[in-house]
Amino acid sequence: MKILITSGGTRESIDQVRSITNHSTGQLGKQIAERFLSAGHQVTLVTTKSSVKPAEKPNLTIIDITNVESLKEALEPLVKSHDALIHSMAVSDYTPVYMTGIDEVAQTANIYDLLAKKNTESKISSTDDYQVLFLKKTPKVISHVKEWNPAIQLIGFKLLVDVTKEELFSVARASLKKNQADYILANDLLDIRDGKHKAYLVSKDAEIQVETKADIAQLILKVVTQGKES
Amino acid sequence: MKILITSGGTRESIDQVRSITNHSTGQLGKQIAERFLSAGHQVTLVTTKSSVKPAEKPNLTIIDITNVESLKEALEPLVKSHDALIHSMAVSDYTPVYMTGIDEVAQTANIYDLLAKKNTESKISSTDDYQVLFLKKTPKVISHVKEWNPAIQLIGFKLLVDVTKEELFSVARASLKKNQADYILANDLLDIRDGKHKAYLVSKDAEIQVETKADIAQLILKVVTQGKES
Repeated sequence: MKILITSGGTRESIDQVRSITNHSTGQLGKQIAERFLSAGHQVTLVTTKSSVKPAEKPNLTIIDITNVESLKEALEPLVKSHDALIHSMAVSDYTPVYMTGIDEVAQTANIYDLLAKKNTESKISSTDDYQVLFLKKTPKVISHVKEWNPAIQLIGFKLLVDVTKEELFSVARASLKKNQADYILANDLLDIRDGKHKAYLVSKDAEIQVETKADIAQLILKVVTQGKES
Repeated sequence: MKILITSGGTRESIDQVRSITNHSTGQLGKQIAERFLSAGHQVTLVTTKSSVKPAEKPNLTIIDITNVESLKEALEPLVKSHDALIHSMAVSDYTPVYMTGIDEVAQTANIYDLLAKKNTESKISSTDDYQVLFLKKTPKVISHVKEWNPAIQLIGFKLLVDVTKEELFSVARASLKKNQADYILANDLLDIRDGKHKAYLVSKDAEIQVETKADIAQLILKVVTQGKES
């Protein structure tokens, strides 16, 4: 099968020096890619420069992206030409619009007007004691996947922090429905430590619990390839 | 000599998942450390988990830090016990205070009041179309170095983007004076590419131009060790 995997975390620039990112290292996506490669599948891994990656292999293609915009651009044609997307990348929710000193914000009658402003400096000056960064929501790439290719199998990921199992499942099922995903791998940051990675593969009517990254990779391989040849 | 080197970039958390960081990889600090190690000096490298690092060596100690606060805490005792500090780390200028939807900001009569608020969520909710992040200036670690140890040699670094040579020198000299540094390595992001790294080692009355990371490392070794034994 032709398997598309995303891993690592996107990075949204504030200016040419600073950016907002997340703590994703790419470790889970790497292990999932390696599991599919060992099973003889063709893997395309969409990731970032700083993420950990599998060793080079003839049936592995690696594509580097940076921010959400470049992710969306890279994914559209790839989604159309692959059989499954395992979207483990931590995608930024927000991207910077404008950064300024707090005094400008205090002196602006309608602060929504600041959303139309843009920084022209290459490196935003750092003289103010307090700065204010305005951010806008990024496009939800996962919501386009089944539009681009209704036949693709879609495994989404949901990472929450310090929530109950019920809340985790409820958020996962909402994502399943909204994005027409086949499965959501739901996990809580507090359950990822000391070599363990507890997670639940949530479908419409079941949840399968696993305890390590290797187990997650094995379970995803199983559900994606069941009844299909490599 | 006992040489203290900082490298990589600090990371300031917005919440348990997101953070603000910069594009520093640690490559320059790594090369400087390797140059001093080859010349037989004792090196302590203060860096971050994701930075590139020299291979293990008997005369190399590596200490990982995360944000500006942890950098300051780690550096104070080290500055007191070393002969020179080569401070190539890209230190965050600002750290997050509070993040909220733009509507809360618009509805707040005195927006300075928001600087006293704190996020209590582990992962800040992402339902608003626009969010606003308030940031405060971080303590200037470099300004404390000569207070902690008046006898230490201090090499500071200044990275600007797309400025004239005159502006670069003027900013470097202001930093030299303010922080009582012995030299400032001044560079422009536009001059770092394709394996080249143009930079100027600026002192009170001279600037020495170099063209690569290896040249920067060699020049810093020379000025730090001149007239001294390893």
